[in-house]
Amino acid sequence: MLKNDLLLRTLKRETTERTPVWMMRQAGRYLPEYIKLREKYSFFERVQNPQLTCEITIQPIDIIGVDAAILFSDILVVPQAMGLEVQLIESKGPFLPEPVKTKNDLKRICVPNVHETLGYVFDAIKLIKQELNGRVPLIGFAGAPWTILCYMVQGKGSKTFDEAKAFCYTQPGLAHQLLQMITDTTIAYLKEQVKAGADAIQIFDSWGGLLSKYDFENISLKYIRQIVTALKDEVPVIIFAKGAWYSLKEMSETGAACLGIDWCIEPQMARKFSGDKISLQGNFDPAKLLSPIPEIKKEVMQMLNAFGKGKHIANLGHGILPNVPVDHAKAFVNTVKEFEIKP
Amino acid sequence: MLKNDLLLRTLKRETTERTPVWMMRQAGRYLPEYIKLREKYSFFERVQNPQLTCEITIQPIDIIGVDAAILFSDILVVPQAMGLEVQLIESKGPFLPEPVKTKNDLKRICVPNVHETLGYVFDAIKLIKQELNGRVPLIGFAGAPWTILCYMVQGKGSKTFDEAKAFCYTQPGLAHQLLQMITDTTIAYLKEQVKAGADAIQIFDSWGGLLSKYDFENISLKYIRQIVTALKDEVPVIIFAKGAWYSLKEMSETGAACLGIDWCIEPQMARKFSGDKISLQGNFDPAKLLSPIPEIKKEVMQMLNAFGKGKHIANLGHGILPNVPVDHAKAFVNTVKEFEIKP
Repeated sequence: MLKNDLLLRTLKRETTERTPVWMMRQAGRYLPEYIKLREKYSFFERVQNPQLTCEITIQPIDIIGVDAAILFSDILVVPQAMGLEVQLIESKGPFLPEPVKTKNDLKRICVPNVHETLGYVFDAIKLIKQELNGRVPLIGFAGAPWTILCYMVQGKGSKTFDEAKAFCYTQPGLAHQLLQMITDTTIAYLKEQVKAGADAIQIFDSWGGLLSKYDFENISLKYIRQIVTALKDEVPVIIFAKGAWYSLKEMSETGAACLGIDWCIEPQMARKFSGDKISLQGNFDPAKLLSPIPEIKKEVMQMLNAFGKGKHIANLGHGILPNVPVDHAKAFVNTVKEFEIKP
Repeated sequence: MLKNDLLLRTLKRETTERTPVWMMRQAGRYLPEYIKLREKYSFFERVQNPQLTCEITIQPIDIIGVDAAILFSDILVVPQAMGLEVQLIESKGPFLPEPVKTKNDLKRICVPNVHETLGYVFDAIKLIKQELNGRVPLIGFAGAPWTILCYMVQGKGSKTFDEAKAFCYTQPGLAHQLLQMITDTTIAYLKEQVKAGADAIQIFDSWGGLLSKYDFENISLKYIRQIVTALKDEVPVIIFAKGAWYSLKEMSETGAACLGIDWCIEPQMARKFSGDKISLQGNFDPAKLLSPIPEIKKEVMQMLNAFGKGKHIANLGHGILPNVPVDHAKAFVNTVKEFEIKP
């Protein structure tokens, strides 16, 4: 039994006493307690050791007081499980030394047995659920297939991911084969996250907004839809396709419980596009958490009023920045908790 | 007298026999003829030597056959003229070793005499006009004040420009002072470009789309509006605020002749937002130029049909990528030239 089920009730579009709040990347680099662990353990040690993963996942619950925990992990554990080498070097971002470029490269990867390759995630989830002891729900997650393909093909971060796009435009057959392999792996992975105890699932399509509406449908949403369909009867699913405002309507029709939005779309506009039957999550500009605290409070209240009462999960519009002072993050969360939305 | 005035007539919303076409960054790194000059001369030699600037500006007219020339230069000549050191290292992007962070830093910069600091640009424009000899019009340009501030404060490229944003959010007085100084410099700079012979002006707000609608109005559009107001009676002005789809309506009311859009908004939607009284420019995904030529042709025709007849300047939705084959760029341009739009 959950003591705080604000998030889950909002995902079911039930009325709650107040708006639930959490922050993308809340377990991580802005917290001194996290930085201490980072100095001692490599990224994959932190991700693959259930005890460490559990400790990091729960830090923001204790320190910041958010209404949900989100598994500490990385979307690139999926391509790693599929057989690609993934390096995550602090402050340098991801690096995949042998990216997928040709038909031959596809032979190096597979749809893995997720128990064998990602068992450490399920162990971590079980431990987190035990340690949380019903305080707040736990969100599991994975990257959207298009975003995973971006890294598998480009091999590193990019502003435009033009090599990944060129791969899709010049070798569409291969691209769709790869996208389907990622999708199959992701479905198996997320189903096991749910079995292990995840109360909700978020799909991160960080690079969805680099595509035109047509390409987003064809290269990204088609596969997200498969994932939502496979999971939605077991657990509520949140889709966060950053920048893909133009497909909010289509995303709202997938069966997802909630859509994440960034600060570049006004809440009223997002409601108009996504309709009345879905919750929205967001959309505070993470850079605004660098503002003075009174300014943060003012802007959070404006955001809450703009979303209106109900069907809203307060969050940032992207991950929290590493240089945000902890008391600014607290001010964000506390303002949501204290605010009375005009009905 | 211009022999090809398709662009200028489209900017006046006159009916033309066909859609004009040019490409952002058409003078540059995908052309072997440009790469040869790059191997011999540093970036600032190419930009500051009118003879070289002229040669590079005219290359795509001769080689690709576009309907307009755009001055070969960089938006960062403005902060350089204002007194900041700007380094442009090939394949590394811009670097400003002493960015603006404090009130004291503002003392290091000024609103310069543009004749003294940017005279080489006006000399280049005069030479280009002479060499073009009326073949096609010449577009002059500058960065939008917000985008210039991004580099002046952050000191280098960034995905989020969070330091630039934090500067605006924590020191708004200082930020607006800096934005006004950039605006005043830009107006003087562009007025002289027009005097030297520029037939149209484009304002590049490459980072406009990082802001919420509210911040875009307050930090960016407010200053773009001043620039448009100062120029629009002399020359048609194109605003290209990449990603700022949410403010197309407000931009259409500035007096600009045309709005640039990227591929993440459908032409019909952009028309709806911007109204019937303004031309639109764009919006081919630059990564699509890596597709096979038949695919490029098909997609260009789809784009042209989506914009419909008139009030459209065919272009990319961002700069051409360095790895685009020259014949793919030609296929883009030729498809526009040969296409009969259904009325």
